[in-house]
Amino acid sequence: MLEKTTIDQAYTLIQPHIRQTPIIHISAADILGDRNDNNRICLKLEQLQYAGCFKTRGAFYALLSQDKLPKLVAAASGGNHGAAVAYAAQKLNIPCDIFVPSSAPKPKVDRIKDFGANIVAEGENFAAALKNCEQHIAKTDAFSIHAYNDMATITGQATLALEWLSQIKDLDTIIIAVGGGGLIAGMSSYIKMVSDIKVVSVETSNSASMYHAIINDKPVKITPSGMAADSLGASIAGDNCFTLAKSNVDEFICVEDEDVLEAQRLLWKDYRTIAEPGGAAAFAALSSGVYETSPNEKIGILVCGGNTKFDNFI
Amino acid sequence: MLEKTTIDQAYTLIQPHIRQTPIIHISAADILGDRNDNNRICLKLEQLQYAGCFKTRGAFYALLSQDKLPKLVAAASGGNHGAAVAYAAQKLNIPCDIFVPSSAPKPKVDRIKDFGANIVAEGENFAAALKNCEQHIAKTDAFSIHAYNDMATITGQATLALEWLSQIKDLDTIIIAVGGGGLIAGMSSYIKMVSDIKVVSVETSNSASMYHAIINDKPVKITPSGMAADSLGASIAGDNCFTLAKSNVDEFICVEDEDVLEAQRLLWKDYRTIAEPGGAAAFAALSSGVYETSPNEKIGILVCGGNTKFDNFI
Repeated sequence: MLEKTTIDQAYTLIQPHIRQTPIIHISAADILGDRNDNNRICLKLEQLQYAGCFKTRGAFYALLSQDKLPKLVAAASGGNHGAAVAYAAQKLNIPCDIFVPSSAPKPKVDRIKDFGANIVAEGENFAAALKNCEQHIAKTDAFSIHAYNDMATITGQATLALEWLSQIKDLDTIIIAVGGGGLIAGMSSYIKMVSDIKVVSVETSNSASMYHAIINDKPVKITPSGMAADSLGASIAGDNCFTLAKSNVDEFICVEDEDVLEAQRLLWKDYRTIAEPGGAAAFAALSSGVYETSPNEKIGILVCGGNTKFDNFI
Repeated sequence: MLEKTTIDQAYTLIQPHIRQTPIIHISAADILGDRNDNNRICLKLEQLQYAGCFKTRGAFYALLSQDKLPKLVAAASGGNHGAAVAYAAQKLNIPCDIFVPSSAPKPKVDRIKDFGANIVAEGENFAAALKNCEQHIAKTDAFSIHAYNDMATITGQATLALEWLSQIKDLDTIIIAVGGGGLIAGMSSYIKMVSDIKVVSVETSNSASMYHAIINDKPVKITPSGMAADSLGASIAGDNCFTLAKSNVDEFICVEDEDVLEAQRLLWKDYRTIAEPGGAAAFAALSSGVYETSPNEKIGILVCGGNTKFDNFI
C-alpha cells in the first residue's frame, strides 16, 4: 500500500521546502553507562525542522501531491499538526484556517498565527473545534489534512527515513516515538523496503495507542494522559498506521513519564537540545534502560520535535 | 606563527574526543527579508559541541599536545572555559581544579562540578579567583590553560574552521563572534590558508575588545558591559589573537545588545536552537542588518555556544 518510488518522488517534491536535518554522534557510554557494550548511537535532530517538528514533511507532501494546489486549507489542531499545516500553507501562499478550542494556550495559538494562519478559537474542547473545522470544510471546500492517518501524510513522514539512511549507512536499530502512528508507519515501511534495520516503537504507558492496538490486533480507544499526551496522545491509532506498523515494526515498548522528563533533562544538559516530551521519548527508551541493547548494536534515535516549554526540566 | 599542518594534526589529535557539529541551511528570505538578494545562508551549530561550546576543542588540544599528559590541570573561570577544561580533564582522567569567585552563580558551578572538577569558590571577584588559581599552580605545578591567548588554545579553535570547510565548499563569507579573540584568531588563520573566504568579526559595542584593538592598532583595556559580557566580555584582546586577527579578518563590526537578544529569540523561534548571547552575536550581525550583504553572497554563521538561561528571550 506504500511504494518505494512514491516515497522517493515525495522526497524530491518536498525537498525544496523542508530542511535536511542533521545527525550527531553521541557517546554510548554517556547515555548507557555500564550497559554500554561497544554500542554506537546517533541522534537525528528533526526538531530543527521548519516549524520545529517532522509534521512539516507530511503537510507539504499532502499539499504538493495534489494535481492542483488547493485554494484553501484547514485543520483542527492547536499543536504540531496545526503549526505544520499553517507553515506549509504560508510558504505555498494558500490561505489557511486552523481550528482550536477557545481554551487553547496562547503561546501555541500565537505560533500558528505567526505562520499566517487564521485562528478560529471556538468550542470548549478539541471535539468541538474539530466539528467547527468539518463544518467549515463542508461549506468552503477547503482542503483538509489528517494529522496521521492520510496516506499522503504517512508518505511525507516516510521521507524522514529516506533522508536519515542517506546520511548514515550502518545502523542496526532505529527508535521512533509514536503518537497516532503516521510517522512510524511511513518510516518503518521505508526502512523495511531498503534494509533489515530493526524498528522500535516507543510510547509512554499512559498514551500508548499503538501498543494497545498491537495487543488487541486492532486500533482501540484509549484515554491518553500524562506529560506526553500533548504530542504523543492520540486516542486511537490510525487504521492505516496500525496496518503498516504491524507489518514493519519489530518491537513496541512503553516508557514512563519520569523517563521522558529525565530524557528531556539529559538532552538539554549533555546535548544542548530542546525536545518536547514526544521528541524525547525515543531517547528515554535508551536512557531509562527500558530498551535492552545488544552488544555492538548501532542505534539511531529520532528527536522528532522541539515545540515545548521547558521550565519543568531545566 | 600558525601552520596549516599544525591545525591538520590538531584536528586528528582531538577528533576522537570532540563532536563533528552539524551545519544546517536556512532560508535567506527568513533572516534577511527584503534585503535578500539571492543569498544563501548556513548555520554551524557548534553549541552542540561537548560542554556546549567551541572551547572544548582548545581545551583538548592544549592537554593532548603536551609531550606527556599533565598530572593536574587548573583554570580560573566560572564560564565556558572552566566547563570545557573540566570536561576535557574528566574525559582524560586528569584531576582538575576550577577557581571561581565565591559569588559565582550556582547553575554554572554545578555544571562544572558535573564534569568532575573540584571547585574552589573563594575571593570576591574574578581577579581574586585568578590569583588563587595562580598561587595553586605555583604550588602544585598544575597545568594551566589560558582561555584564549595560548597558541595551543588558538590552534584547537582553528579546527572548527577546518571541520566547517570540509562540510561545505562554496562559502563567500564566515561571520564569527569574538570575545578575547582565540576563536577568530585560529579560525581566520586557517580560513585564509586555504581560501579567500571573507571573515567578519562581530562584538557587541559595549564588549568590543577586538574592535578597539584594531582601532588603536594594539590591544587596549576596556570595561565590558551589557548582556554579552559574560561570554564575549574580555577586558583586553589577547596579543596573539590580535596579531592573527589583524592579518586575517576582513571586517570588524559591532552590534547592540538588543540585536543579540532579538537574534536569540529568532534562533529559538525559527530554528529551535538555544544560543548564549555570544553564540547569537554572529546571527545578530545578519538579522539586524548591521552586516551588509552583497548580491549572491553565500554566508556561514557560527553559533558558537549554547550555555545560557533563556527566561529573557523565550
